[in-house]
Amino acid sequence: MPNARPKTRESHPETARDRLIAAAVESFAAKGFHGTTTRDIASAAGMSPAALYVHYASKEELLYQISRSGHDVTLRLLREGAASSDDPMEQLLAAVRGFTTYHARGHTSARIVNYELSALSAEHYEEIRAIRRTINQQMRRIVEAGVAAGVFHTPNPRMTALALLSLGVDLARWYRDDGEWSDQEIADHYCELALRIVGARP
Amino acid sequence: MPNARPKTRESHPETARDRLIAAAVESFAAKGFHGTTTRDIASAAGMSPAALYVHYASKEELLYQISRSGHDVTLRLLREGAASSDDPMEQLLAAVRGFTTYHARGHTSARIVNYELSALSAEHYEEIRAIRRTINQQMRRIVEAGVAAGVFHTPNPRMTALALLSLGVDLARWYRDDGEWSDQEIADHYCELALRIVGARP
Repeated sequence: MPNARPKTRESHPETARDRLIAAAVESFAAKGFHGTTTRDIASAAGMSPAALYVHYASKEELLYQISRSGHDVTLRLLREGAASSDDPMEQLLAAVRGFTTYHARGHTSARIVNYELSALSAEHYEEIRAIRRTINQQMRRIVEAGVAAGVFHTPNPRMTALALLSLGVDLARWYRDDGEWSDQEIADHYCELALRIVGARP
Repeated sequence: MPNARPKTRESHPETARDRLIAAAVESFAAKGFHGTTTRDIASAAGMSPAALYVHYASKEELLYQISRSGHDVTLRLLREGAASSDDPMEQLLAAVRGFTTYHARGHTSARIVNYELSALSAEHYEEIRAIRRTINQQMRRIVEAGVAAGVFHTPNPRMTALALLSLGVDLARWYRDDGEWSDQEIADHYCELALRIVGARP
């Protein structure tokens, strides 16, 4: 019931901010960052362009918030995976399960986060790149820990970690909400693939 | 020497078309499809907007040609891989090597082809989707042939084939021309990962 949206929500700052983020995700997904105007976003959120600027300085600021939030969650999921056990195999499984499930469920925003990176300002791009490096490092540390413990076998832990992340990132491209597999079925299979990729031997 | 471009090239239709494609790839990569105007593309090709329309009906027509060409090459590489041997393992290695190398070397156009799919007209989108289904089928057939021959071991050949393609597709996102690995080093490692992913046992 988009027409029945109560006026009072406008006056709640957090709700207005969240609505603008949701509207920006929807608009960027439909028309790309460069093809979207702040008017499109404000309109999709049921607000005036002037009201949008109360909350966000620019369209780029919205993209940055979406990107920052997506990368923060991704890094947190990998860190939680690493902290979940002392066993590198369990760490890998938890990290891959979290990363895979997030990219399936959040495929729309994940695509924006990964495809519109070059639209960020130079300063924001550097900030996000730093988080991406930390994400790569976090996955690499799990792989290296397994190699050091003698349970994983790979000649190139760094490239192997990038490949593991690629499986999740590209899932956001092909995953469909009405597809033949649930996110859990994909996560189960991807956990098995991850063990194969790192050459895990119990 | 962009300023020394000879005038005579304008009069050669194939060259003008190729230049417009190269200019479109450059412009879409920099500003996204929706953020690029036909004027941007014509200008990057050193032509007038009117001259562009002699060769392509619209900006979407340029995106379609880039997308069609990229998908045709990708499908051809997989078919060549499948035709290269009767041994599913050799087929897989040839297919993965071709697919990986193409996505590394052609990372700029590969990103456009994969990220701007929703900007195609409904008719062109359906045509490209059909090629993508054939690409997925081709990789799946290789995996299924290996399973049938008892040399590959995977409970889900269909999802496994998508994962194999994901490694190549997402390589276009993270590959850098000045990165630490050559496309050949990545192809070598990805061939090894592909054998692990399908559970290959000689």
